[in-house]
Amino acid sequence: MATTLVVNPSRASRAYTLYSDGQQLLAMYFDQTTAGYEMCTQTAQARQTCNAIPDASFTTTFTLMVDAVTEALQREAMGKQINTVVIRVAVPGSYFQRHAVIDVEYLKVLREQADVAPLQVPMLVQEINEFRKQFPNTRLLAASDSAFHAGLPVQAGCYSIPAEDEDTFDIRRFGYHGLSVASAVRRIHPIIGQEPERVIVCHIGSTVSVTAVKNGKSVDTSMGFSPATGLPMGSQAGDLDTAALLEIMRIKHMRPADAAVYLSTKGGLFGLSAEADLRKLFDLQAHKNEQAEQTLAVFVYHIQKAIAASTVALGGVDVIVLTATAAVRSSELRELLLGPLHYLGVQLDPEKNNQLVGKDGLISARESAVKVIVLRNDEAGEMLQVAAQFQ
Amino acid sequence: MATTLVVNPSRASRAYTLYSDGQQLLAMYFDQTTAGYEMCTQTAQARQTCNAIPDASFTTTFTLMVDAVTEALQREAMGKQINTVVIRVAVPGSYFQRHAVIDVEYLKVLREQADVAPLQVPMLVQEINEFRKQFPNTRLLAASDSAFHAGLPVQAGCYSIPAEDEDTFDIRRFGYHGLSVASAVRRIHPIIGQEPERVIVCHIGSTVSVTAVKNGKSVDTSMGFSPATGLPMGSQAGDLDTAALLEIMRIKHMRPADAAVYLSTKGGLFGLSAEADLRKLFDLQAHKNEQAEQTLAVFVYHIQKAIAASTVALGGVDVIVLTATAAVRSSELRELLLGPLHYLGVQLDPEKNNQLVGKDGLISARESAVKVIVLRNDEAGEMLQVAAQFQ
Repeated sequence: MATTLVVNPSRASRAYTLYSDGQQLLAMYFDQTTAGYEMCTQTAQARQTCNAIPDASFTTTFTLMVDAVTEALQREAMGKQINTVVIRVAVPGSYFQRHAVIDVEYLKVLREQADVAPLQVPMLVQEINEFRKQFPNTRLLAASDSAFHAGLPVQAGCYSIPAEDEDTFDIRRFGYHGLSVASAVRRIHPIIGQEPERVIVCHIGSTVSVTAVKNGKSVDTSMGFSPATGLPMGSQAGDLDTAALLEIMRIKHMRPADAAVYLSTKGGLFGLSAEADLRKLFDLQAHKNEQAEQTLAVFVYHIQKAIAASTVALGGVDVIVLTATAAVRSSELRELLLGPLHYLGVQLDPEKNNQLVGKDGLISARESAVKVIVLRNDEAGEMLQVAAQFQ
Repeated sequence: MATTLVVNPSRASRAYTLYSDGQQLLAMYFDQTTAGYEMCTQTAQARQTCNAIPDASFTTTFTLMVDAVTEALQREAMGKQINTVVIRVAVPGSYFQRHAVIDVEYLKVLREQADVAPLQVPMLVQEINEFRKQFPNTRLLAASDSAFHAGLPVQAGCYSIPAEDEDTFDIRRFGYHGLSVASAVRRIHPIIGQEPERVIVCHIGSTVSVTAVKNGKSVDTSMGFSPATGLPMGSQAGDLDTAALLEIMRIKHMRPADAAVYLSTKGGLFGLSAEADLRKLFDLQAHKNEQAEQTLAVFVYHIQKAIAASTVALGGVDVIVLTATAAVRSSELRELLLGPLHYLGVQLDPEKNNQLVGKDGLISARESAVKVIVLRNDEAGEMLQVAAQFQ
């Protein structure tokens, strides 16, 4: 039977999850905390343990990951090898809007996108090359984070730029968080006992998106050409007014690459308040910190507008799904976000909302016209399903 | 009694309206048509007449305008002089979010904004200087097109960029079309016999905006730092995804000023279909032209999303106002735009909608939860009221 390693690289952290025959054997992630770098691991039945590591360089973390995976395979999977490695790919381009075997051609096209996505591509290429070197007999797959949005209607997918530029340069709304959204959509039925027609999925973690899903298909989404766009996020500005962006570039003498870094690292919650962590912002707000209050107001307001705007593609809304860390962890955020949307037929059950922390479940009132569901992010599980399509 | 000349300069055309004691004596505009340049004039009781003019240079049009104004003042206002000239100013900057006397300081600050708004400022300065030269005893006033939005709530008005950049460089959502929106809001009561609490004003002409108005005050609006942003317009892209913009700039080696021109002249309806005129697009659509159909779908969809998003700032909506040329002229556009929004409580009366062309009136069905009103644009009338504030 098959063993699969799911690889989820992001700028903020890197996560690896090892499955054997669909069962999770080991989950690992590398992160930077205020105390330094750490590696957290969780085996099948045990609690998560975190340990400090000397540095977060790719070489160090990859070696630690391989050691942990090898040990787990020997201990729990009777010495099996890794059959498949599946890597999340969130890179602009129509070519990347599909799940694929990572072969020589795929790697070539990916490398050619380095100028388009300088923050993502080199990291991905490094990861892929190391797997090719150390696991030459293992099949490598790309799980596309934009594939779920490949069929966007033209009015949602195209920008109002010259049509020839759109075609020549492949400039359109690709959308991301597709694996997260697809995994959320798949898990609605078990919670409410039906497949709703009109669903809005809000992914609220260190990155943020809102997607309109009609009969299981994405019909609009907030992230656009790159995963840096759409809503304000932890440190990403999201969709800044273009005239404002050009004015900042003019004043600060920025080239496009500088501007991309500025928007990705100095914007969002961090830009507004020098604090990218929602938990800390809620703490500060509780102590009447005005800047924290305003920052939360901006953050929440943009998500609310995206939810309301999503109803156009759907002709209304039946279910709102909240997923990813911040949405799953904070009942306070959920209340702040959805409380004011009663006029759209959304009514939270305060008790259910307060009691549900870190778990899946329904938090809307029985009489709410719109059902509200909280679902933990399961990108890894979705990527395992992607891998299964290639068996 | 007072004579006032209202000046409405825009890139597409220039309009002048002469009032004596609040009565319109003469309206003029200069425009470019497929046949060449023309000057159209309308005196108090007569029909509009249009004549070809040799060129549309500032000197030519200004001279023609002065001649026409002088003649009208002699003929209809017993040889009075112009007491007040009021000019519409749509320029980024907190300084310009108020109506003001144009004195030496105002002109100085305006000149300093030439780099920020290269398309607007030189044209305005030229106009102002010519009036100062030719009418040295006439009072010059600036009617701010952003003043109506000066009190936007922080969540609607600020961008998620570093707070110090917002303050240092005065980068925020100023909003425009304020004179049009204010004039529309003022005229709702005469149509429906009450002052609604929650109003959404859609200005749909060669430029486009959507504004949320709560109890008479602007609480959100689609145009941002400059009047070029927000929704797709005739030839303006509106809010393009920042990553897409940076990618186009990288590929085409554009500087910020080039990008601003690109977004302002090659985007919108024109970018999508090489046709900026909504009337022609509707004609093409009627002949099953697929590109026209898709262009209209993009155009309408973005306005619909802005309408739906506006409900967040208002907590719902009581009245939708449609104003400016395209909205007033085309029942087809109104049906395409608002037909799908029945889920928000909007229901048009098809007969009223079809019969109302070029006039003010109510077009929603009696049972519609949201009232829909069509109002002709009256920026000139609003600017006359602005002038009255300075008597």
